[in-house]
Amino acid sequence: MSAEIESIESLLEKNIKGEELSEVRRILYGKELKSVHIPDKVTQLAISKDFEVKAYAFEATPEQLRPPGTVRVGLIQNKLVLPTDAPIKAQIEALHQRIGDIIQAAAECGVNIVCMQEAWTMPFAFCTREKHPWTEFAESAETGPTTKLMQELAQRYNMVIISPILERDDAHGEILANTAVVISNTGAVLGKSRKNHIPRTGDFNESTYYLEGNTGHPVFQTQFGKIAINICYGRHHPQNWMMYGINGAEIVFNPSATVGSLSEPMWPIEARNAAIANSYFTCAINRVGTEYFANEFSSGDGKPAHKDFGHFYGSSYVAAPDGSRTPGLSRTRDGLLVVEMDLNLCRQAKDKWNFRMTQRLELYAESLTKAVRPDYQPQVIKE
Amino acid sequence: MSAEIESIESLLEKNIKGEELSEVRRILYGKELKSVHIPDKVTQLAISKDFEVKAYAFEATPEQLRPPGTVRVGLIQNKLVLPTDAPIKAQIEALHQRIGDIIQAAAECGVNIVCMQEAWTMPFAFCTREKHPWTEFAESAETGPTTKLMQELAQRYNMVIISPILERDDAHGEILANTAVVISNTGAVLGKSRKNHIPRTGDFNESTYYLEGNTGHPVFQTQFGKIAINICYGRHHPQNWMMYGINGAEIVFNPSATVGSLSEPMWPIEARNAAIANSYFTCAINRVGTEYFANEFSSGDGKPAHKDFGHFYGSSYVAAPDGSRTPGLSRTRDGLLVVEMDLNLCRQAKDKWNFRMTQRLELYAESLTKAVRPDYQPQVIKE
Repeated sequence: MSAEIESIESLLEKNIKGEELSEVRRILYGKELKSVHIPDKVTQLAISKDFEVKAYAFEATPEQLRPPGTVRVGLIQNKLVLPTDAPIKAQIEALHQRIGDIIQAAAECGVNIVCMQEAWTMPFAFCTREKHPWTEFAESAETGPTTKLMQELAQRYNMVIISPILERDDAHGEILANTAVVISNTGAVLGKSRKNHIPRTGDFNESTYYLEGNTGHPVFQTQFGKIAINICYGRHHPQNWMMYGINGAEIVFNPSATVGSLSEPMWPIEARNAAIANSYFTCAINRVGTEYFANEFSSGDGKPAHKDFGHFYGSSYVAAPDGSRTPGLSRTRDGLLVVEMDLNLCRQAKDKWNFRMTQRLELYAESLTKAVRPDYQPQVIKE
Repeated sequence: MSAEIESIESLLEKNIKGEELSEVRRILYGKELKSVHIPDKVTQLAISKDFEVKAYAFEATPEQLRPPGTVRVGLIQNKLVLPTDAPIKAQIEALHQRIGDIIQAAAECGVNIVCMQEAWTMPFAFCTREKHPWTEFAESAETGPTTKLMQELAQRYNMVIISPILERDDAHGEILANTAVVISNTGAVLGKSRKNHIPRTGDFNESTYYLEGNTGHPVFQTQFGKIAINICYGRHHPQNWMMYGINGAEIVFNPSATVGSLSEPMWPIEARNAAIANSYFTCAINRVGTEYFANEFSSGDGKPAHKDFGHFYGSSYVAAPDGSRTPGLSRTRDGLLVVEMDLNLCRQAKDKWNFRMTQRLELYAESLTKAVRPDYQPQVIKE
C-alpha cells in the first residue's frame, strides 16, 4: 500500500456487506458486542483534539447470587507530541497534557480503569542504544512527577490509572526498570509491576537499559476488579500470562510498543490467546506513528543505518475469556477505546470450558522442574 | 447465513481486490506464501473423488552450513462416509477406503508426513454418552486393523503416517484412550501419543470414555523431522504445547473435532499462537460436516434433546514459527492441505525472536511448583 491503511476493520466494512460481513465478523471476532453510547461532549472533545473514540460492551449471563461485575476500562494509544530532539521537559509536559485530555474523555465515558501504552512519557528510543539523553526520561515510580500527576487525576476522576513508565529505582542503586505504576482511585500508589521478559530482537536489545523484572506476577485488588500488567514482549510468553491468571487476575493489560514489519500478524493472536487460555480479559495497547531520531542507528539486519525503525500500528483491542474481541483502534491515529465488561464472564468461561480444572498444573510443575536441569534428556522416540 | 459459507478466505477474495486484499492478507495471515504445483493427476483425482486440494510453501533463509530442511506435510479433513447407524465394519471400511484415496493423492504430491483428524475411523459419538456401539470402534494402537493398513500405506508411499484413533489397550485392563499412532515410513509403529487434556465442556465429557493421557510429551524423530501430536482439546493448553517444544518438536500436529458454535472464533488463534510461542510449525486439523445419531441426546444447555451437535467446520491450516499461516481448507468439504516447509525456519525464528532464551523457565518451574500446593497464597496487592 502506498499509505498506511486506517484499520483492517475499515477495509472489511468498506468491501463486505450484510450477512457476509456478519459471518466474517463472527469468525474473526466472535460474538457480536453491544455498542456503548459515547456522550456528545466526548465526541466533540475528540474532534477538537483529534483523537478517535470507540466503545463496546461484553455482556455476561445474569446470575442469581452475584450482581453483574460491570466495569469500564479505557485503553489509550498515542503518538509523540513533540519531536524527539525537543527539550526533554517540554516533551514530557506535552505528553502529560495530551494524555490528561484523553483521560478526561475517558472519565466522561465513565471509565473506571485506564491504561496507557508502554513507556508513555517518552519516545521509544531504546533502538538507538544511546544512553544520553533517553535515560533522563526515567523517574521514580513512587514519587516521580508523572506519578504525582496521575495521582491527582486518579483522585479527581475516581479512576484506577495504570501508568507504564521508564523507572529509576533510587533505593536499589539507581537502576532502570520498565515498570507499570498502579494508582488506586483513592490516589494512593497501589504498587508496581515490572516487565518480566526483555526483548533481544530486531532493533531492540532492551537489556541495554533494564533487565528482567523482579516484581513477580502481582495482581492488584482494586475497587473495580483484580488487575495485572504484562508489559509488551511478555505477551509472547504464555507462562507469563498464566501466572497472572493463577494469581487471580480478571483483567490483564498489555501496554506495548511494536512496529508493523516485526509483529503485526502476531498482534491479534497473542493477547487473545491469553484471554482464552486463562479465562480473563486482556487489553492490548500499542503506540501509534513513526518516531524519528537525530542520530542514525543500524538494526543488525544488513540494511543501511536509518533514523526511524518503522510504523507503530496502534490497533489496540480488548479480548474476552469467551474468545470474542473488540475491533481495534486505528492503525494511524491517537485513540481511546472504552470497553464495558461484566467480570462475571471470567468465572462463567471457567465453568463452561473447564480449562483450569483440566490444566494438569502438577504435571507441568514437575515437567518444567526436570526440563530446566542442565542434564535434562528430552523425551524423544527413535526407530 | 442461510447455508454454511465455504471459507472466510473465499468471502475475502470475492469482495476485496488488489492492494487492499494484499494488506488484509498480510495482517490476517502474515507473509505471502509461495504456491506449490499440484500435479494434474491429483487435480483429476480430487475432482472425481470430490475433495479439495490446496498447496503452499513456507520458505526459510538459505544457510551456509545447513542444507534446507525441506519437508512436505499433508493434512486430511473428512466427513463420515456412511451413516452412523450403518454396520460398524462397513463404516470403518468406507473410511479406510476414503482416506486411502486421499493419502494416495498426498503421495502423488510428494507428501512425507500425513495426519488425519481426531478419531478418524469413527463418528465423533462421545456426545451421546452411549457406550454401545461406539466403543466397538476402538482398536489396538499396535496391532489393530487400522494400524496394519496404515503400515502398508506408509511403506508403499515412503510416508510417515499419524493415525489418530480410539485405542483399546489390552495390556492395561482393556482401557480406552484417545491416541495418535505414529507409523514410520519404514512401516514400523514408531510409537503413540495420547490426548493429554480431556474436555468436560459443551456436549462432551470425554472422560466418560477415556482419561488424561499417560504418554507424556513424546517427540518422534522421523526421517523427515521431529514431530509431536497435541490432540484436540490440548490446543487450549499453552503448557501442553510448550512441553512438545521443550522436547524438540519441529512440527506439532493438532488433530481435532470441533463445531462452529462452540469454538470457531478460537480456531485461528490457538494453534497459531503455539507456533509463535514455541518456534515450531503447527498443523491444525478439524473434521467436516454434521453427524447424526439414531438416539437423541441432551447437551446440558436447557435446550431440547437433539440428534446432532452442530457443524464441524473443517478449516484445517498450518502456522509457521514466524507467525504466518496458510489459508484454511474448506468449511464444508473433504480436503487435503499440502504444505512444504523448510524446518530451518524453526531455529531461524528462535534466533530472531529469542523466545526460548528469554522464557525464564526456571522462574516458572519454581512458581508452578509453589502454585500447585494446597496452601498456595496468590500474589495479591491490596490497598
